[in-house]
Amino acid sequence: MADKQSTKPPGGTRDFLPDDVRRREYVIDVVRRVYERYGFEPLETPAFENIDTLLGKYGEEGNKLIFKILKRGEHEGTGEADLALRYDLTVPLARVVAQYQSELPKFFKRYQIQPVWRADRPARGRFREFYQCDIDSIGSTSALVEAETLSAVSEILLTLGFSDFVIRLNHRGVLSSLLDLAGVPSSKHAGALVALDKLDKVGRDGVAKEFAQRGIEDAAAAKALAYFVDRESVDVLGHTNDGVANLMAIMELVKGTRAHGHVRIDSSLARGLSYYTGAIMEIAVEGIGSLGGGGRYDNLIGMFLGRDVPACGFSLGLERIIVVMTERNMFPARVAGGGVDVMVTIWNDESRADALALAAELRNGGLRVDVYPEADKLGKQFKYASSRNVPCVAIVGDDERAQGLVAIKDMQSGEQTAHRREEVAGAVARKLELRT
Amino acid sequence: MADKQSTKPPGGTRDFLPDDVRRREYVIDVVRRVYERYGFEPLETPAFENIDTLLGKYGEEGNKLIFKILKRGEHEGTGEADLALRYDLTVPLARVVAQYQSELPKFFKRYQIQPVWRADRPARGRFREFYQCDIDSIGSTSALVEAETLSAVSEILLTLGFSDFVIRLNHRGVLSSLLDLAGVPSSKHAGALVALDKLDKVGRDGVAKEFAQRGIEDAAAAKALAYFVDRESVDVLGHTNDGVANLMAIMELVKGTRAHGHVRIDSSLARGLSYYTGAIMEIAVEGIGSLGGGGRYDNLIGMFLGRDVPACGFSLGLERIIVVMTERNMFPARVAGGGVDVMVTIWNDESRADALALAAELRNGGLRVDVYPEADKLGKQFKYASSRNVPCVAIVGDDERAQGLVAIKDMQSGEQTAHRREEVAGAVARKLELRT
Repeated sequence: MADKQSTKPPGGTRDFLPDDVRRREYVIDVVRRVYERYGFEPLETPAFENIDTLLGKYGEEGNKLIFKILKRGEHEGTGEADLALRYDLTVPLARVVAQYQSELPKFFKRYQIQPVWRADRPARGRFREFYQCDIDSIGSTSALVEAETLSAVSEILLTLGFSDFVIRLNHRGVLSSLLDLAGVPSSKHAGALVALDKLDKVGRDGVAKEFAQRGIEDAAAAKALAYFVDRESVDVLGHTNDGVANLMAIMELVKGTRAHGHVRIDSSLARGLSYYTGAIMEIAVEGIGSLGGGGRYDNLIGMFLGRDVPACGFSLGLERIIVVMTERNMFPARVAGGGVDVMVTIWNDESRADALALAAELRNGGLRVDVYPEADKLGKQFKYASSRNVPCVAIVGDDERAQGLVAIKDMQSGEQTAHRREEVAGAVARKLELRT
Repeated sequence: MADKQSTKPPGGTRDFLPDDVRRREYVIDVVRRVYERYGFEPLETPAFENIDTLLGKYGEEGNKLIFKILKRGEHEGTGEADLALRYDLTVPLARVVAQYQSELPKFFKRYQIQPVWRADRPARGRFREFYQCDIDSIGSTSALVEAETLSAVSEILLTLGFSDFVIRLNHRGVLSSLLDLAGVPSSKHAGALVALDKLDKVGRDGVAKEFAQRGIEDAAAAKALAYFVDRESVDVLGHTNDGVANLMAIMELVKGTRAHGHVRIDSSLARGLSYYTGAIMEIAVEGIGSLGGGGRYDNLIGMFLGRDVPACGFSLGLERIIVVMTERNMFPARVAGGGVDVMVTIWNDESRADALALAAELRNGGLRVDVYPEADKLGKQFKYASSRNVPCVAIVGDDERAQGLVAIKDMQSGEQTAHRREEVAGAVARKLELRT
């Protein structure tokens, strides 16, 4: 190629090399298994949608961030776009619910783990391609739905090795009752929640300042701060408030679940998005911040259906979870330690078929086995295995073959042991377990 | 929504509802596990590439089929595209090999299972979004690479339940030696292979006709047909021919592998693509046709690197495999039978917490458990379970609770049995096994 092209991935996107993919797949696999045990079922939608399906669904700012695809056959000419890349997983779900209403169960619980694309200005930690990982339970207003959601999310975090998490729980009805009680007029509720949502970032004084900027009177602002920041919501409103009653019902149901001990009612939790109508929740981990959030939103899923459909959803911060787990070395040895358990060396050209047969036996034992492809100096083969972090190397030299043995070299200790052929897979498996 | 929008997925794309995803994931999971046991490592690249990375790599026809994405911020204005959707998995691999040369091992074996997009005219069975599933072994010219490739592919097919497959094996060197020997001039080799590639579709006479149309003289054409169609290549060329020697070496190595008995040298196999330089292979299944193919291509992976890199690849026809397995009912019961193993019913509002606790116990037993979200008539709950193909339903009525028992209703037979609480998970698991 005469003209030297850049070989980097496009700005804001990433290549995932084997170690990266293994980490990602490990997390996705845990998420998938747990959600399936909770009766959530998988859904996948196309990477792109008809452009009209997406335009106007994400506000003016969102519209600008949608990647638009040129119409087929007229690319260079008109510049007309007829398709657009998936921007989130909620609009496709709403479309699916409308399209397949007769096929889907009355209570449809789906999980969806797919990439989305946003034409954001690339910046550190902000990507143009990233995975979202959503569950949504559609069709019921029961508090049991929230309890199951909290339990499933907790089980995922516990399985991944997070123990120091709290899921903050609040309710949009509680928030607006408190604002009413504080004397904040309804017209200023939305703005007050936006200000409140920044509490973690700007602190009590910052929120107070923004309340003032948004024209909330001093007396109302002071009361609201007392209710939210000083967290006296339940006491103030009493259990007859619908929102409080719902939170109490959820907390009661949570007791018998994996979320028990991890959920805390927190009247300062506001969640930025405007579409929530009931309970809202957010995972907080000490020293990290949010690893995901969600809540009840009863008016969104029906957007293509033309009628309201009750729904409760949760979006796990998959990309953030992977970053944190990598920083904290939370991956099991098998995931962190490379893609090959044992490499079979090649003694000489004549022994290649035998090396393949040995590899087949080790694979039958469930091991991930590479075979050095060429006859080469043993030292070079060891060096190669070492550079790939392969923990064990199998050698069948002329002596070993004569005795029906296989030598296993532990690449960490350098120790070499001989095993009868039928015992090799077990011996390697034991070495790997020791290192887990 | 006043304006009724279409809720279908875009033309040429598909929504995958839960049953579809489970089937797809089952196949992908088998593929992934087998490839990993063979030392292949996962790679993932972004859905789009810089447009210059893709343009000019797929010929004039290919260029037209590339989906182009409008440049950010100038969408409506210039119509300029700066990104394009992934068209195959080979060009991204070539880019990755150039970009990360210092990090990748000398022998890089990767698998990649990701969707690609082509702006084809939508037609029955032809999609604009479909998965490719590729392995490539980079860095060695050893025949062991071909043998391992054939073995891995065979193991996948056997694991999925295909037993009646043959992998046809040929060699580009053999094809050109035979064409030389028949007296077909080098300038007409490429055309002759294109004609030969159609043998399965148009038969011996069709190929003869196209040979004539392509200006291959009668005598040469007759000889070539005898060599290829009547399959006498090895005898004609003898073992000193480089291509034949390579095929013999591969066949010898295959003997100790899972591919043994499934590989057949077939001198009529041509493979359409022009970039193959050595062995070529293709899976044939009786009554189905090809389920994938590949071969050695030593000049393509280095396209961004600026030097040749030996490589051997195989592309499994994932979409085709899923279609055939669905038609032939080849999926295990757990995959084919829906996403929920047991549904816990709700007796009344007061017993909801207890239902969640029972669900938690069943989930600990590895079962996929749904909980009916609301207190409702039992008959209605059974009907719902039935409509979702849930095989078992768990009931804790007042009597059962008093006795510490759980009733399990087999939804197929209608039979209802009572179990002690700690034995419920096992009882359900046994019922599910019986049905596998």
